[in-house]
Amino acid sequence: MTTTYTTAQSTLDAMRDGDLLARRRRTLGTHSPLFYDEPLEIVSGSGVWLTDAAGRQYLDVYNNVPHVGHANPVVAEAISAQLRELVLNTRYLNERIVAYAEELLSHFSAPLDRVSFTNSGSEANELALRMARQHTGNTGVLVSDFSYHGNTSSLAVLTTGLQVLEPLGDHVRALTIPDTQGLSGTDEAAMLQQALEEVDAAIASLANAGHGVSALLFDPLFSTEGLPRTPKGYVEGLVARVQAAGGLVIADEVQSGFGRDGETMWGHQAYDITPDIVVLGKPMGNGHPIGAVVTSLDLLEEFGSRNLYFNTFAGNPVSAAAGLAVLRVMRDENLLTRAREVGLHVAENLRQATRALPQVRAVRGRGLFIGVEVIEPTAGDPDPTFAKRLIEDMRRRGVLVSRVGRHDNVLKIRPPLVLTHEEADVLLERLTESLDSLNKSKKQ
Amino acid sequence: MTTTYTTAQSTLDAMRDGDLLARRRRTLGTHSPLFYDEPLEIVSGSGVWLTDAAGRQYLDVYNNVPHVGHANPVVAEAISAQLRELVLNTRYLNERIVAYAEELLSHFSAPLDRVSFTNSGSEANELALRMARQHTGNTGVLVSDFSYHGNTSSLAVLTTGLQVLEPLGDHVRALTIPDTQGLSGTDEAAMLQQALEEVDAAIASLANAGHGVSALLFDPLFSTEGLPRTPKGYVEGLVARVQAAGGLVIADEVQSGFGRDGETMWGHQAYDITPDIVVLGKPMGNGHPIGAVVTSLDLLEEFGSRNLYFNTFAGNPVSAAAGLAVLRVMRDENLLTRAREVGLHVAENLRQATRALPQVRAVRGRGLFIGVEVIEPTAGDPDPTFAKRLIEDMRRRGVLVSRVGRHDNVLKIRPPLVLTHEEADVLLERLTESLDSLNKSKKQ
Repeated sequence: MTTTYTTAQSTLDAMRDGDLLARRRRTLGTHSPLFYDEPLEIVSGSGVWLTDAAGRQYLDVYNNVPHVGHANPVVAEAISAQLRELVLNTRYLNERIVAYAEELLSHFSAPLDRVSFTNSGSEANELALRMARQHTGNTGVLVSDFSYHGNTSSLAVLTTGLQVLEPLGDHVRALTIPDTQGLSGTDEAAMLQQALEEVDAAIASLANAGHGVSALLFDPLFSTEGLPRTPKGYVEGLVARVQAAGGLVIADEVQSGFGRDGETMWGHQAYDITPDIVVLGKPMGNGHPIGAVVTSLDLLEEFGSRNLYFNTFAGNPVSAAAGLAVLRVMRDENLLTRAREVGLHVAENLRQATRALPQVRAVRGRGLFIGVEVIEPTAGDPDPTFAKRLIEDMRRRGVLVSRVGRHDNVLKIRPPLVLTHEEADVLLERLTESLDSLNKSKKQ
Repeated sequence: MTTTYTTAQSTLDAMRDGDLLARRRRTLGTHSPLFYDEPLEIVSGSGVWLTDAAGRQYLDVYNNVPHVGHANPVVAEAISAQLRELVLNTRYLNERIVAYAEELLSHFSAPLDRVSFTNSGSEANELALRMARQHTGNTGVLVSDFSYHGNTSSLAVLTTGLQVLEPLGDHVRALTIPDTQGLSGTDEAAMLQQALEEVDAAIASLANAGHGVSALLFDPLFSTEGLPRTPKGYVEGLVARVQAAGGLVIADEVQSGFGRDGETMWGHQAYDITPDIVVLGKPMGNGHPIGAVVTSLDLLEEFGSRNLYFNTFAGNPVSAAAGLAVLRVMRDENLLTRAREVGLHVAENLRQATRALPQVRAVRGRGLFIGVEVIEPTAGDPDPTFAKRLIEDMRRRGVLVSRVGRHDNVLKIRPPLVLTHEEADVLLERLTESLDSLNKSKKQ
């Protein structure tokens, strides 16, 4: 009976899912990206758990946007209450948006004391680049050679880590981000020197081409790059060189912000640098579309005096309510500390569990952004096929992870910040089982 | 007693407002635009009414984003219910976003049968321009010479109707939109011919410069331009010429869409044309940040095959719930018909009431987008000063309006679509009083 029911139910599910997939293709097209060989239909979420249409629960250790947990009730209630009162724009005074701006800016140090709200990280990076070009009078931009900062035209021409038809702009120079994984002290010093020489050369090249340097745009965690461990002093040297060349430093904290690394509220605070502009996005509203540019009084006033910048939706009281609720939950649940502790627990246990596994070269990352680098044991080459099998196998085991990096071989563990020790143990158990099982099936 | 209380209360309010304004400047900067000489602090809204911090109600006939009414309870409940279930992205299957896509596309005619969601009109125009450039291999863009399509870099270089530091791009040609206001039939034919010759010249100029035509980007209502009445056949001739030159036609329906003109769901349907891409925004989610690109199967598949386009927030089930609720309220409350009827009522009564007023040259517009063109009676020149006085005076009388157009002398009446006949009569009464009073004070 149980089997019959299960079969019937899964057939029904397959038909319904198939139908939904077909309907999706007929409206959103066939290229709108989907995870997994057989896409998952998700119907609800709570904390770090997602439920599919068949009622199966998955531990979500991939999605960073639901920062304080899927369908967080505090955020839902804050948005709902404000929706019943007022949704409006920033051309009228409203207490809520100012309160949010104050609360958000209290997490930054001087001179970062002004904010301009947007609806996304893409919009915020656009605004940051406009400010940088106008301030410096230059057009050149430095990015990493495997990075992504958004989906607009100006961001497409500096995209190096994702498929776009637009070629790299003439005004763009892409830098190799050095990775000290497995190097000794001496090699690390040589790598640092070489990497900074590459920066000098890129700046000189932009100067020679008449572009000059308007901005360095970088993710302090180097997430898309696969979480390389940069040599000590690299980011500081890079920033110093860009600022010396007259360029602005834009820290794109869309991935690294809001305590992701478990140490500081912002990724750039891991280094001894002061960015000119910080860009925020993804986790900011727990899924509600918000982004922001945080900068100095001088830079914002300069831009404002030269341009009428108005953003229809951004800075509305509902977005502010969402943003405030995220900060409140982070504080009340002590999520920065929890990210550090649970992150360390996951990373340490993963290192221990995978020490004997020849497929795992390294466990990388900081806080609750952890990468597991997977290689082909004999030659030592990156093994994206194994990484893909791992992700599909983990899905079957009820855990959602993804992968990242230049070779798509770094398992990406980047859960909502509310992950508990117990939930982390579920991840560890399943991942160990999965690695073990794939390892065995490979040997046979 | 009443006086004392009122004074004390208004002093308190002034202090609080002053404080809020100062706090806003210390966080959002001094240039974030605000309406009115003394900005209004708005605390709540319902239907076409807004309430300020002192408890005073204002009839809002300006804001188009709250399309189905401020703090609409159907929209608020739809968003709230979904927020408690799931906020996720389009990389998992979800029924709600597909249902919304289907519902939205049912309002379009072939070949417009695919949609890509964004978080704003700016993001949607960016995507539309990327599609056009990639499809045509050209870079040139035609816009009107007093228009605005968004706040990103690529849109700043084609902005002609708002202050930006960026100069017009080399690849941009700005067209004068002909206005037949006050012309006779013969003059109108000459104007049409001249305007289309200007289009031909612009296309030839783009070809000669090696840019070619990638796109025409225009608002079918010509809102920013001040609602000119174009000669019959102008838009059709413009579109035919652009398509003949190999360019795509992008109808930016951020202002004209969702039944604003009271005749058709989309502004472009007022003409005998088929745009290649339609861009949606502002009213789409009643204030929730949503935008979209609606296009054909061929164009979306072509772009999708060449680029990985992913938008983190866009197409999440909460945005879909908001969009679905707006369409449902529009249908249930028959808002398209109401916009036509109430719009006609307002326009006709305004024409009648202002016929004898030398300051009013014309009442323009369609449906619930009405412009009142204000001139200096002696010379017949545009009179932005009078328009500004009118707006401030209307505010004192409890009605919110704004202004638009090249000379900032066109009173902009663009209320939520739920405006009733009775509420329209309040507007008419106050506007007549205001015009009368300013007229008298001018004569004295």
